[in-house]
Amino acid sequence: MKLVRYGAFGSEKPGLIDKDGKLRDLSGQVKDLADDAFAPANLAKLAALDPASLPAVSGAPRIGSPVGGKPKFIAIGLNYADHAAESGMPIPSEPIVFMKALNSLCGPNDDVEKPRGSTKLDWEVELAIVIGTRAKYVTEADALKHVAGYSVCNDVSERFFQIERGGQWTKGKSHDTFGPLGPWLVTSDEVGDVHKLSMYLDVNGKRCQTGSTATMIFNVPQIVSYLSGMMTLMPGDIITTGTPPGVGLGMKPPKFLEVGDVMTLGIEKLGEQKQKVVAA
Amino acid sequence: MKLVRYGAFGSEKPGLIDKDGKLRDLSGQVKDLADDAFAPANLAKLAALDPASLPAVSGAPRIGSPVGGKPKFIAIGLNYADHAAESGMPIPSEPIVFMKALNSLCGPNDDVEKPRGSTKLDWEVELAIVIGTRAKYVTEADALKHVAGYSVCNDVSERFFQIERGGQWTKGKSHDTFGPLGPWLVTSDEVGDVHKLSMYLDVNGKRCQTGSTATMIFNVPQIVSYLSGMMTLMPGDIITTGTPPGVGLGMKPPKFLEVGDVMTLGIEKLGEQKQKVVAA
Repeated sequence: MKLVRYGAFGSEKPGLIDKDGKLRDLSGQVKDLADDAFAPANLAKLAALDPASLPAVSGAPRIGSPVGGKPKFIAIGLNYADHAAESGMPIPSEPIVFMKALNSLCGPNDDVEKPRGSTKLDWEVELAIVIGTRAKYVTEADALKHVAGYSVCNDVSERFFQIERGGQWTKGKSHDTFGPLGPWLVTSDEVGDVHKLSMYLDVNGKRCQTGSTATMIFNVPQIVSYLSGMMTLMPGDIITTGTPPGVGLGMKPPKFLEVGDVMTLGIEKLGEQKQKVVAA
Repeated sequence: MKLVRYGAFGSEKPGLIDKDGKLRDLSGQVKDLADDAFAPANLAKLAALDPASLPAVSGAPRIGSPVGGKPKFIAIGLNYADHAAESGMPIPSEPIVFMKALNSLCGPNDDVEKPRGSTKLDWEVELAIVIGTRAKYVTEADALKHVAGYSVCNDVSERFFQIERGGQWTKGKSHDTFGPLGPWLVTSDEVGDVHKLSMYLDVNGKRCQTGSTATMIFNVPQIVSYLSGMMTLMPGDIITTGTPPGVGLGMKPPKFLEVGDVMTLGIEKLGEQKQKVVAA
């Protein structure tokens, strides 16, 4: 099942994409795709619907983040060995964990703001996990039961803010629009093996990142289990899981985004995003 | 005005403390103390009430976090020169910013959990800012207009998780109950000069931290202005602003919390907290 939220920022309605790729309105079935809407029993109710019976949405509305409410937005750093190498950092022995401020969360095709004072705006295509049920001290064996599904995330990063302005990455990861998510939340059953999905990111039509979730250092069960020992994960919480090689910081010489640049990125089975860079 | 939330965790009601120290019920006036309830116009409505006209709350209910909803929980690190020195870290040239996962937020007298695997559980009495109106790119001169009030925060920290387990402090700052806030949100008008408040923290009745907000490296307007250039601050967002000297990590030899230990901490004009350490 491909779940979406559509409409103006802040007042998105729930929907799903049917087998023909048509957007169908779910607002008669569920108030929002947020919090407990991602619990297995509630997803099962949506899965049991006949999509053809749902109102088709006309036109091409804006697509928002497929996760509403106010979830935690957690990120794993340096989770691909080649990306750690290009960043000049050692391969971590435990997952590196930081948080993106929730105001960074936006739709998959929204403009990305270049903050004032930004000199090193960068891109990161990532697999995002969406939590379905509360998780505290869960084992790796049980971890996937707590996952509702997956989505594409662009973990937009300002490297000057992140690295050169006095410690802790949150600074360079939290500006408005630094977390495009979507287009869809694809439920776990439809994704199948989440550890063999190809991923890519183009800047102005030129391929920059090519990778596969197969080369993650810490895989999805390991990440969920590990995090659940650090903080309680709640339904709707988003965990973006690190990026493969090919970010601007890793190029020789480094290359960063300018106003007007366009990023196009996607992950196999999870759809594609497209963002234009605008001035904040 | 001293605003409080009282009742069981997750279903707190809004209230205020009258001039005689009595708890009065505000649930007829405001649904919750969250989000836009902290806007100046809404606080003015509450301030205009005659507290004697509000129902007195009988008994001694649990006091919750004075901020409801799902705010951001932002923290400033090493913001007192003496604390930076005791931690063996340089005085920062810009505020150090990290985030506490929201599940850490709790009431001022709730038990604090010692996580599994914790060996270095530590305390930090801090002044917390609560945002009243949206702030993006605000100047230092305008910053205080965006502040609704202040509260006491214990920025509970697991130093092994924070420092020795692979980068980024969020790991050691985010466990459930690692963010006791309260007892009150004291509105700015009642606090007066926020930069000359004495603060203290005792463990098992023995004074560990003594300080004053006068010795903050970055003051409240600087912090709010700086953060507003990194992420948009929203009504209800909490910013805890760093701790004075006297944490367990800084002792020689270091001393950390054990199950059964009791922390008592407070800030002039903002009230006192008391937490017992329990096993997670």
